[in-house]
Amino acid sequence: MRIGVLGGGQLGRMLALAGYPLGLRCRFLEPALEAPVDGLGERHADDTSEEALARFTNGLELVTYEFENVPVELARRLERAVPIYPPPAALEASQDRLHEKTLFRRLGLSTAPYAAVDSRADLDRALDELGAPAFLKTRRFGYDGKGQFFLRQRSDADAAWSALGGSPLLLEGAVRFERELSHLSVRGRDGGVAFYPLVENHHRDGILRLSLAPAPDVSPALTALACDYSRRVLDELGYVGVLAIELFQQGERLIANEMAPRVHNSGHWTIEGARTSQFENHLRAVLGWPLGAADAVGPCAMLNLIGALPDPRTVLAVPDAHLHLYGKKARPGRKLGHVTVQGGTPEEVRERLARMGIAAR
Amino acid sequence: MRIGVLGGGQLGRMLALAGYPLGLRCRFLEPALEAPVDGLGERHADDTSEEALARFTNGLELVTYEFENVPVELARRLERAVPIYPPPAALEASQDRLHEKTLFRRLGLSTAPYAAVDSRADLDRALDELGAPAFLKTRRFGYDGKGQFFLRQRSDADAAWSALGGSPLLLEGAVRFERELSHLSVRGRDGGVAFYPLVENHHRDGILRLSLAPAPDVSPALTALACDYSRRVLDELGYVGVLAIELFQQGERLIANEMAPRVHNSGHWTIEGARTSQFENHLRAVLGWPLGAADAVGPCAMLNLIGALPDPRTVLAVPDAHLHLYGKKARPGRKLGHVTVQGGTPEEVRERLARMGIAAR
Repeated sequence: MRIGVLGGGQLGRMLALAGYPLGLRCRFLEPALEAPVDGLGERHADDTSEEALARFTNGLELVTYEFENVPVELARRLERAVPIYPPPAALEASQDRLHEKTLFRRLGLSTAPYAAVDSRADLDRALDELGAPAFLKTRRFGYDGKGQFFLRQRSDADAAWSALGGSPLLLEGAVRFERELSHLSVRGRDGGVAFYPLVENHHRDGILRLSLAPAPDVSPALTALACDYSRRVLDELGYVGVLAIELFQQGERLIANEMAPRVHNSGHWTIEGARTSQFENHLRAVLGWPLGAADAVGPCAMLNLIGALPDPRTVLAVPDAHLHLYGKKARPGRKLGHVTVQGGTPEEVRERLARMGIAAR
Repeated sequence: MRIGVLGGGQLGRMLALAGYPLGLRCRFLEPALEAPVDGLGERHADDTSEEALARFTNGLELVTYEFENVPVELARRLERAVPIYPPPAALEASQDRLHEKTLFRRLGLSTAPYAAVDSRADLDRALDELGAPAFLKTRRFGYDGKGQFFLRQRSDADAAWSALGGSPLLLEGAVRFERELSHLSVRGRDGGVAFYPLVENHHRDGILRLSLAPAPDVSPALTALACDYSRRVLDELGYVGVLAIELFQQGERLIANEMAPRVHNSGHWTIEGARTSQFENHLRAVLGWPLGAADAVGPCAMLNLIGALPDPRTVLAVPDAHLHLYGKKARPGRKLGHVTVQGGTPEEVRERLARMGIAAR
């Protein structure tokens, strides 16, 4: 069976690797000359002419995607030829921070206070309403901390406007929180859902660096709240596949920050650390197959390898360390791979991380 | 980094899949038009001219193999260009049942009584010595029960001879045993060794059907004996990579039956069921990287899918069932894939196997 994947980065690579044992082969729509999916399936360039799309969808069971900036119009065109999961409505909701937050609010998920900003005057009004500190963000195409400006005080408005003014924007009140969490869930074609445990995430320079899974010190009530949030979004969108929601924790409250309608970096630990990996479960979901259990098998940590690679021998000398390289050339700030470390206890995981000699924070 | 693999069957496929996360790409020497490794690396036909072998080894870090009938002379020729692991001496020892048993005996491993048979007169002499029941076997190229004849009584000698006479043969006394076990181990380039737990194997029509891992009801003394057997063979051969030894259990005794100098069907459970899979550990060993822990993470079973495939939905509806398809066309007696089922207890594993609706025995 052959499925199409929009995008050919590391998420596509790990989807393809999870697909082989299930009897799946992937065909990727990816413009880059070199990509992490090289050697793992057919590559089509992202020519979006009718003829090229017909060649791409020819013989495919379905299409899915591994990055959320797929043009919705492209997804809708593909949908006329083959099923596409997650549904294009999920792309639509997640591509625009304003739509996303509006959806969250409408479904009863807490969010930071926000206001749309389309002009300099809007920005002033929004600052009157929300105050500083706040984040000015582009509504579209932000990722890994890009397309954001932090206003420490009101007087930063001019600088913020000159940095981002011109695109549709959103002002978001800065909220205090104890930590960043993410919640991954998966919904099948039959509406069945499996929830991964909450994960604690640490960023550096706006890029995810470290995930601790399951997140330590999570109350049952917090887990229930996260599952409730995810289920509302999944059901509202008639979602199929893995969904990631990024959250801020305030005591027993969760603030929904953003969502990604795809497998997610904060779920890479599931390859070894969960009963079924996010990649396998995403494929099972889009195929309409039964979902696998999403529980953790024990504590673990996932460390992104950014900009440079360690000696694999140093990593693999640590017990229960698993290396995942993406086949990318080293470049500053680039995610080149990740390491998952398991252990009997969270303390053992931390001690093993430390032994790897890669600064975790 | 690129490594060469002689053979392109399911073992090569699973080696390739384990290689991607480690940053490895495989190049396969495989004559079949269609093979399970298709789409997982470059394919070279098995042209063994100097020029073709030079093209095959060009740019390779090392060569390994996934079937034990690689001609030793080919391995030695390749070795002049790149390292080859496991060492060709291991091929030599395992390709001939007489050499294999002689090696086992010399190293102190118990074996069934045996005698070389090169003529009809030899067969009579061997039957005088060993008695019936006994197995007449070709010394070379036997697998999955092929190249064997069972002599229930002395009067079967004529039939046995007409079936196999002409090739170099071995008569093996039939030994009583309680069950068949296998022991997988892995030795690194630095001589470091990791042992997988003993596994209980069940065959049907001479083909492995079911493995239970770890084998239930194994005493510490039996495990120690298996490790001692494996270590003697590994050290004697200066072995590098995964080695499988098939054993018969008689109480607290182990009879070494045969060995395979490669990853092994009875080790497929290690993908989910062990802290490091046999495929990853084989690659780590041949690369000279640190070995991973080989303990089981809990009880599991591996069921071969032979001749026909079940509906994947039936398999995946069972908790902690993992499907592994090999991309092969269905044909009677052909290994098309396997399923690994985990559970909290061996009883739960058996109950889940039963729920899958595939007869396990």
